[in-house]
Formats: sequence, C-alpha cells, structure tokens
Amino acid sequence: MFERRLQKPDGRELILYARQSRGPIEGDLFAPSPGVTPGGKAAEVKRSSHLRWHPLRGEWVAYASHRQNRTYLPPKEWNPLAPTTSLDAPTELPPGRYDVAVFENLFPTLSRDPGEPPKDLDIPVRPAHGRCEVVVFTQDPTASLGLLPLDHIELVLEVWAQRTAELGARDDIEYVMPFENKGVEVGVTLHHPHGQIYAYPFLPPIPARELSEQRRYFETVGRTLMTSIIEGEIADGRRVLYEGPESVAFVPVCARYPYEVWITPRSPVARLDLLNAAQNRDLARAMKTVLRKYDLLWQRPFPYLMAVHQGPSDESEHPHAHLHLELSPPYRSRDRLKYLAGTELGAGMFANDSVPEEKAAELRAVRVDFD
Amino acid sequence: MFERRLQKPDGRELILYARQSRGPIEGDLFAPSPGVTPGGKAAEVKRSSHLRWHPLRGEWVAYASHRQNRTYLPPKEWNPLAPTTSLDAPTELPPGRYDVAVFENLFPTLSRDPGEPPKDLDIPVRPAHGRCEVVVFTQDPTASLGLLPLDHIELVLEVWAQRTAELGARDDIEYVMPFENKGVEVGVTLHHPHGQIYAYPFLPPIPARELSEQRRYFETVGRTLMTSIIEGEIADGRRVLYEGPESVAFVPVCARYPYEVWITPRSPVARLDLLNAAQNRDLARAMKTVLRKYDLLWQRPFPYLMAVHQGPSDESEHPHAHLHLELSPPYRSRDRLKYLAGTELGAGMFANDSVPEEKAAELRAVRVDFD
Repeated sequence: MFERRLQKPDGRELILYARQSRGPIEGDLFAPSPGVTPGGKAAEVKRSSHLRWHPLRGEWVAYASHRQNRTYLPPKEWNPLAPTTSLDAPTELPPGRYDVAVFENLFPTLSRDPGEPPKDLDIPVRPAHGRCEVVVFTQDPTASLGLLPLDHIELVLEVWAQRTAELGARDDIEYVMPFENKGVEVGVTLHHPHGQIYAYPFLPPIPARELSEQRRYFETVGRTLMTSIIEGEIADGRRVLYEGPESVAFVPVCARYPYEVWITPRSPVARLDLLNAAQNRDLARAMKTVLRKYDLLWQRPFPYLMAVHQGPSDESEHPHAHLHLELSPPYRSRDRLKYLAGTELGAGMFANDSVPEEKAAELRAVRVDFD
Repeated sequence: MFERRLQKPDGRELILYARQSRGPIEGDLFAPSPGVTPGGKAAEVKRSSHLRWHPLRGEWVAYASHRQNRTYLPPKEWNPLAPTTSLDAPTELPPGRYDVAVFENLFPTLSRDPGEPPKDLDIPVRPAHGRCEVVVFTQDPTASLGLLPLDHIELVLEVWAQRTAELGARDDIEYVMPFENKGVEVGVTLHHPHGQIYAYPFLPPIPARELSEQRRYFETVGRTLMTSIIEGEIADGRRVLYEGPESVAFVPVCARYPYEVWITPRSPVARLDLLNAAQNRDLARAMKTVLRKYDLLWQRPFPYLMAVHQGPSDESEHPHAHLHLELSPPYRSRDRLKYLAGTELGAGMFANDSVPEEKAAELRAVRVDFD
C-alpha cells in the first residue's frame, strides 16, 4: 500500500492510497486559494457539535446542526467524490493516480475542533471530539465495492486498518468503526462508491454490549464467542455463504435482518490493524463473495449497511474481542422493505419475518464466479 | 368504558369498547361459519414463531415467517379494519356501535400457541409466547389519533390500560408495550387509524436498560429520574410543548430524533393501569396537543412511531419506573427523512442534525386549539 498525504485548502486532511507503486502517487490540490472548497461551501459551514447525556438510556447523543445542510443527492454532473477534472469545478478529490482516498468529512459529527458545548443545559454535555472520515473506494462512480477487483478490496481493508491504527492511537479516540451505507433505501446521499469512518471519544453502546458479552463468554469458556459461533455455523452448514482458509461468511443463526450476513476471520483477531496478509486477503474474498451474491440475487444493486465491529482502541489487551463485519440489508423480500418500528425501536426486540435458514438458502443458490 | 367480548370464527379474541353506554354495545360476528376470516386467509396462515438467543448482543430475536405474507396496503375498497358492511366481504370487525376495538393479530409474532421451536439449532431457542394485538382507534378510516375528540383519546388510553393490566396478569407475560406506527414512512401497511400491543414473555432490552438506569437514579437520589427530567424541562422552558395539571410534553433535552417528544404524567406512575382519571384525562390532552402540532407543522399528516414505556408487569413494586410515551418521527426537516444508518445501527450513537431547542421552537410556534 502506498500513500500520499495532503491538506485541503480548508485545512482538512486528505490521504490518497494506491495498490502498487507506479511512481509517486499523483494528486495535486486543486483549489487556487485556501478556504475555497468543493461547491464553495466551506465558508458557509459553521462547525459546531456536542454530545449530550441521555439519562434514561445511559448513552451519549451527538448534535451537529451544521449537518442539516449537507450535500444531498447532487446532480450527476457534479460528483464531489470523483476526481477533479476542471479547476473551475473542483470536487473533494484531486486528479491523479490513486485507488482509494480518505478525507475528513466536510460535515463532521465528531471532529478535533467541535467548539464549546452549550452551558445552559440540565444534563452532562461534552464537546463532540473524535473524527469523521469519508473513504472513497474507487475513482469509478459507476462501480461498487463488490465489483472491485479482489486486490482493490484488499486495499480498502488495508486502508480501514491503517485508519483504525492511526485514529485509535489518538488520546481522544477510544473506538473506530468503518462502515458503508449503500443505497438510497438506507439514506445514502451520494452515489459514488464510498464508506465512512467514525472515530468515537468513548466506547459506543452496541460495541460495548457486544464486547461485554464476548468478555463474559471468554472468561467462562476460554475461547472467543465468535470462535464458537463459527464452529456452530460450519457444523450446521445450512447458513454458510463462504468458507475460506482464513475467513467465513454466513447468515447468522440469530439474524435480526432477513438477509443479514456476518463476515469474520476464523482466528480471534481483535481489530483490522491486527490482521495478517493472508487473513486480509481471505477476508476480502469473503466480502466480494457476499456482495456479489447480494447484487446477483435480484439482478440489481442490493442496498445494505455494513459495519465493522472490532475491539476498542485502548492500550489494554482484548483477547475476547473477535473482529467481524455485520451486513444489514433493509429488504425482507424483493419488493418489501423491513422497517424498524414499534417492537424494534421501542422495545429492542427484533422481529424477523423469515428464518435465517431460508434466506441463507436463497443466497447460497446464487452462483458467484471471480478470478 | 364499556366493553363487549367476542370470539372470531378462527378463535381469536375480539373486544369492542364504547365511551358511553348507549345500551348494549352492538357488534355481531359476521362470518357465517367457523374458520373463515377476513379475506378467507385464515386457513392459509400457518402460525409458527419462535425466539432465538443472540449471543453477541445478549438478547432474544423473534422469527415468524408466516408474517412474510401479511396484508400489505390493500386497496381502499377493502379495509380490513373498517366495520363490516356486507356479509359477502367481512372485515376484521363487525358492524355496530363501538368506538375502539382490539383483536388478536392474524399474523402474530408472539402468541399463545406459537408451535415448537426448531430443535436443530446451536443456540438457545424458546417458543415465541406472548400476545400481539391490533388496537383500532376509531371506525372512521379517514381520522387519526390526534384528530379524535379528547374523550375518545381518553378511551384509547383506558383501553391500553386495561390491556396492560389483563395481559400483564398472565403468567407468560412480563412486559406490555402499546405503540403506534403512523405513516408509510415508518412502514405502515394499513392506513386505518390503529396501533398495536406487544406483550412480551421477557423484559425487552430497551425497557430493561431504561428501567435499570431509572432504578439506579432512584436508589441514589430518592425520586424518579423522570421527575428530575420534568423539573429540568419546566425550569428551562424552551422545549416544553404542553404543561397541564397532571402531565407534560416536551422535546427532551437529549432527543435522539429531531422531532422527538416525550409525554409523561408529572407524578411517578409506573404503568398505564395505575393512572387515575385526572391523570388519564390530562395525558390525553397532552397527546392531542402534540399530535395536532405535528400535523399542523407542515400542514400534512406527520408520521411517527409512538411507544409507551412503562414498568414491568410482574408482582414486585417498581417505585423507580415512571410511565412515559416516546414519539420518534422519521423526518429531520420537511423534505428529508432521518435514516438510521452506520453510527445509529452499527454503533448505537445517535447523531441528530439539529438541536432540540430549535425543533422545539418550531413545534411551540404551532398554535393548537381544541375544545
């Protein structure tokens, strides 16, 4: 992996990555003067965000009202995630030879300079420290993560790993979550293939819950919970979508979404930055297999939320933490969305209108071929 | 409140409620022979549902594959929640004089006879015991909960209270949650004004979390957490939407959704069935105030999820539990939905693109007049 670090005119960091060295990575900044950014919006964006404590749920909520005006499904001719082709219409990215790009979100929920939180509230508040990054998967606006060549997907994983390590090393960051929202059905506002990274100043509730369940299991049984789950899935076999030398993918026996899939290394690796090369390669293969099955199932792009669940970025050891990707597609059948409503959002009990064995059978029947 | 209990031809219970005695509540069963139900569907519905343990999250997930074929936005001329007008086309409800009706869901996630769970899974499973009910708020398919007269909304609250008490008294039920999903934006499949009740065989994760936070607060401070929240909201004043003798409504200082509202009695009442008449009446007034503000804000029906958060239905005392309604609308502005995506569903940290003070100001500015 080769990289080049740049700073955008408004001070935001930009990193360009390439798979292979083809000489220095080209990519020059495009805006003629500092303070001017894509669409000329930077000057209007007053960044201010903070966290408030939700006492009933015991969790932090983030407020970032500058995000209300973020870019929303712009016309095709103005794609802020494509490389700039004319200095008259600069995008977020320079022209040049690179495969993946990462930059700080223009509308961050969490940032290094979030401003002061309000002082007149009756609950605990704190600045919304952290970092929100955009990860552009490719220069091709018509591609998708699953359509990229295997070594390109490996590069995305390596980029995620590098960001996990680098952001996690910061004192103000405790947890790093790369994710991809794909499809208008899950609220995507830009169609160019991309994901995001949220780096949190605390351990967020869902990883916290999963890590405490994993810790309890590890302390009782002496192996990671995911190791046992993988064994169970392989022994059963009905829900397995990919079984490689280093990783597996399956519709979990306890899927909350009809087409939910988990992708995980076989070995108990806690975080992306702890994967070795063979693990990284096989994880990419598992991802490509699942994403191709999704798109081929109904012969159309398949929307999903994909989130990386990994160990925290603190100094201590986490032998119980077992990295995995959770994919949560919003469809329950070809023409029906699964809405989260009363029982899911009000009570927290998911109601799945199908059994995982049936949905896995649909996905298993989709044949996927690639190099 | 007056009621009449009936049994539908397929065995499901049906209860008709009226505000005032106008003689016996009329309402006769309509189907000529047992086993025939609305749309002739009953025979096709093979009910089978079970719960699987999600070991990573430590929670139960429900599976009910018969729900995949449930009624979905039927044509206007066939409204299963309207009173039957012709014996040739029976609906779920009989003709007759009643204001509110409750019946067991034809496609229940939780039921008394859920069948046996699969025996060949590698995780804990159990039958999906419990009950799923439909609550039809009015005979008028063009009305909405907020448009009903105040004493009709009071009746809905009384019905919820009666269901809470009756279902909660069952040995196999530990928690009762009435809720309303309103609007196609939140996945509503039938437009006739109605809500649902889920009666769970366990304490679901979200109430469990809220109750444990409330208990901790109560044991430390000696009053309910909601009592302190109410005091804080009233002292601040900027987010208060209704302040009556017995109840208040406000955009909470820690709102996760832009237009989120909580409605709660001032006194620490644990459950709906413990409200007295004055509390019930003022809670109805608060509800009507909020729901009218919602609809008048953009001069169009305002979608939302409304869930009742109350104390558990077990024998023990819950002095820390403070009943409240949480309303979570899916819009973040007039033409933008708030999608739950990476940070919300993956990490559990909600990112609100507005501050509660701003959204409350919008709702406070909407003038509501009723009797």
